[in-house]
Amino acid sequence: MDMPAPDRAVLSKRDVVIRRLQAVLPRGAVIHDPFETRAYECDALTAYRCPPLAVVLPASTDEVAALLKVCHEERVPVVPRGAGTSLAGGALPTADSVIVGLARMNEVLEVDYANRYVRVQAGRTNLSVTEAVEAEGFFFAPDPSSQLACAIGGNIAMNSGGAHCLKYGVTMNNLMGVTMVLMDGSVVEIGGPHLDAAGYDLLGLVCGSEGQLGIVTEATLRILHKPEGARPVLMGFNSSEVAGQCVSDIVRAGVLPVAIEFMDRPCIHATEAFAHAGYPDCEALLIVEVEGSEAEIDEQLGLICQIARRHDPVELRESASAEESARIWLGRKSAFGAMGQMGDYMCLDGTIPVSALPMVLRRIGEMSRKFGLQVGNVFHAGDGNMHPLIIYDANKPGDLELCEQFGAEILKLCVEAGGCLTGEHGVGIEKRDLMVHQFSPADLEIQMAVKDVFDPDWLLNPAKVFPLEASRKRRAA
Amino acid sequence: MDMPAPDRAVLSKRDVVIRRLQAVLPRGAVIHDPFETRAYECDALTAYRCPPLAVVLPASTDEVAALLKVCHEERVPVVPRGAGTSLAGGALPTADSVIVGLARMNEVLEVDYANRYVRVQAGRTNLSVTEAVEAEGFFFAPDPSSQLACAIGGNIAMNSGGAHCLKYGVTMNNLMGVTMVLMDGSVVEIGGPHLDAAGYDLLGLVCGSEGQLGIVTEATLRILHKPEGARPVLMGFNSSEVAGQCVSDIVRAGVLPVAIEFMDRPCIHATEAFAHAGYPDCEALLIVEVEGSEAEIDEQLGLICQIARRHDPVELRESASAEESARIWLGRKSAFGAMGQMGDYMCLDGTIPVSALPMVLRRIGEMSRKFGLQVGNVFHAGDGNMHPLIIYDANKPGDLELCEQFGAEILKLCVEAGGCLTGEHGVGIEKRDLMVHQFSPADLEIQMAVKDVFDPDWLLNPAKVFPLEASRKRRAA
Repeated sequence: MDMPAPDRAVLSKRDVVIRRLQAVLPRGAVIHDPFETRAYECDALTAYRCPPLAVVLPASTDEVAALLKVCHEERVPVVPRGAGTSLAGGALPTADSVIVGLARMNEVLEVDYANRYVRVQAGRTNLSVTEAVEAEGFFFAPDPSSQLACAIGGNIAMNSGGAHCLKYGVTMNNLMGVTMVLMDGSVVEIGGPHLDAAGYDLLGLVCGSEGQLGIVTEATLRILHKPEGARPVLMGFNSSEVAGQCVSDIVRAGVLPVAIEFMDRPCIHATEAFAHAGYPDCEALLIVEVEGSEAEIDEQLGLICQIARRHDPVELRESASAEESARIWLGRKSAFGAMGQMGDYMCLDGTIPVSALPMVLRRIGEMSRKFGLQVGNVFHAGDGNMHPLIIYDANKPGDLELCEQFGAEILKLCVEAGGCLTGEHGVGIEKRDLMVHQFSPADLEIQMAVKDVFDPDWLLNPAKVFPLEASRKRRAA
Repeated sequence: MDMPAPDRAVLSKRDVVIRRLQAVLPRGAVIHDPFETRAYECDALTAYRCPPLAVVLPASTDEVAALLKVCHEERVPVVPRGAGTSLAGGALPTADSVIVGLARMNEVLEVDYANRYVRVQAGRTNLSVTEAVEAEGFFFAPDPSSQLACAIGGNIAMNSGGAHCLKYGVTMNNLMGVTMVLMDGSVVEIGGPHLDAAGYDLLGLVCGSEGQLGIVTEATLRILHKPEGARPVLMGFNSSEVAGQCVSDIVRAGVLPVAIEFMDRPCIHATEAFAHAGYPDCEALLIVEVEGSEAEIDEQLGLICQIARRHDPVELRESASAEESARIWLGRKSAFGAMGQMGDYMCLDGTIPVSALPMVLRRIGEMSRKFGLQVGNVFHAGDGNMHPLIIYDANKPGDLELCEQFGAEILKLCVEAGGCLTGEHGVGIEKRDLMVHQFSPADLEIQMAVKDVFDPDWLLNPAKVFPLEASRKRRAA
């Protein structure tokens, strides 16, 4: 594995790293041809691109440990990558970094129905976890929009949620343990298939740490019994503020739908044109879904419709069949794709207290007029997780910058409203310089000091999460 | 606040600390008379006692910041204390430490029903949080047995659970944010009344860290709507193993009771003699409670009773009235007191995978015969959180030591079974030396390195959580 000094002398640093990685990994697991690494030069935040030094595709925890040891010794930064679906640039490489792609690590390692957990490799896709257990009536609850493609490792890195997290919680609430490789190649076990843990709760710390503390290679996930049934109701309102108030009233009334999804007029129009879901022509639309037995569903939807009627809906349509339910959801699930038809877009991700919804929606509308850029709002309203989509034209000089300014203003508004810069997409590179609006210098310092513990040389997923200036200083120190 | 050098020269270190604390706190907030500090020399793990250097009773975050700054400058260890109900010695002082009692910090600071949270000072008792919001139909879910007395600050320190955490989760699942004072007196805000948080999830780290990372002075807590109704069913079985199997089958079937409580024969006998709850004379008893509307309750209990019948119960009694429900719960809630009638006892706290219940109960029975000490088992079976009570005689030389050995064997068995050293009581002093059975040296090192970040001098809640040898070395370093 080590190379004699004479060999090193004639090779570039890049070549040394590649040769050493080839020495510890199977044939074909190291990609360095610039033509082949191109597929890894960006994630779903496509406005930013950078080819990496190399890409490695390990197949086991041992291989991850071996390659990290090499990178650690060579002081080469490492960027973990699940499926590359990050909307915040969480898997964006730097030119001097090695991408550790987990796509080959997609095995189910253990299924335990009696104790309701499944253990998988971290490269397995979110939906295929459910597929592995659904024959026995179980499912894995977190359901990001990208669930067909996104990897469990990425879900853990970003603490992802989804439409149903109002009832089932985000990834952290469904994660029991991880196997994680530290930057120096040592392997730690955190949590496991039991309640709680002695000592400090490092699992909570690792979940949502955006791949900056270690590379999670295996995860123990809580699986749940599928509910007997589910039924959505579609509501249309003449103003976004009234729809926001209706959400707030439903949450306050104590019924717990599994999902309360919100779409405003620009989204409704784009979606109708694209997916023909039969949505009404109105200012704001809610999809509220409840689960349980038929009796439970009837009871909960009864109360929800009663609340909705107090807000004069222009439409109130309870699904009467499985087909109708599918059509209602089809529209929502197509919304991001449909918005893409309107132009390039940037998808934001901020959270606010549910009661602040009407105010925040009004202010976003005002800002949209000020910046001259259209915004569509489609989001998880029940838990105040907003996803404003700003439409811009990537080919028009200055439009991306304007869009970014607008986005930053919206996220600052979320913080002002008592909310947070990110709900489920993470900070990545997108929001690193906004962190100072959420956190005091003391707050940031202690977060960075925690990173020092796990990754003293700041090699893991560099230049993300913290303000660029701050992480550069830290790395140089 | 600072004292001139001549003054310092004639005073002992103890006197200097007391005078400086008096200078920054209101009259009466510093207790140092040995007669008065006696009340603080132990917590609910009464086998261990030690008078502290002094006790301070701050009334605000600012006062906590001021007094910690003094202790930090004087290098005096600090022991945070909620209500002193720790069963693991979590609030036990050392002779050179200052106890920071939070009893005066019991205010409700904010109630927000629309966003379903309440913000309180950390000294407020668990039950009085619910009392502050129940008129509007809300409650705070975590319900430790000590909920009448125990403080929210202690609940956060130990990540406490309770009988109903099977459905509602432990403290972490109901905690949204904290205000915390670091050892150097700086104040940090972590989390808040919104979903998730940008950057690393320090809230998960702080919750369960046993007061070793900072002193939590205020907490934002999730409040929930009270369910329409609740009903327990009492089941008696002829063997603990069969009862354990029944628990496992109920959990696997996917019904989610709010509580599944377990009592074995020694506990049933002691409780009957004490509380006259009308429990059957059998080997093992389960109390399974479900919540919801009448229809939901009927449906769930129907399925649960059907599962129970497959295990030939000697008794299967569904509560038919509020009085009967209260009587069923009265027995369970009196169990710890009732066991106290049988002698001194040590209450353990370990978790295991639910499917391991029958095996672990059998092995505990075997060990009980080997050690010649009686054990009563009364615990939260649904989530595998065991509370074996070992009966011993404090006046019999060697009996406490024998009891401790027996306890250690049980906890090691929990770890072997795939479980964990502690469910909700924490490590404290009780289990610090057992941590090596749960964690590898690398696991422990990284936990201690995290403590280094928050408390570099290891002054906060000393000599706990980590093996004594390890934390002594760390403090000396």
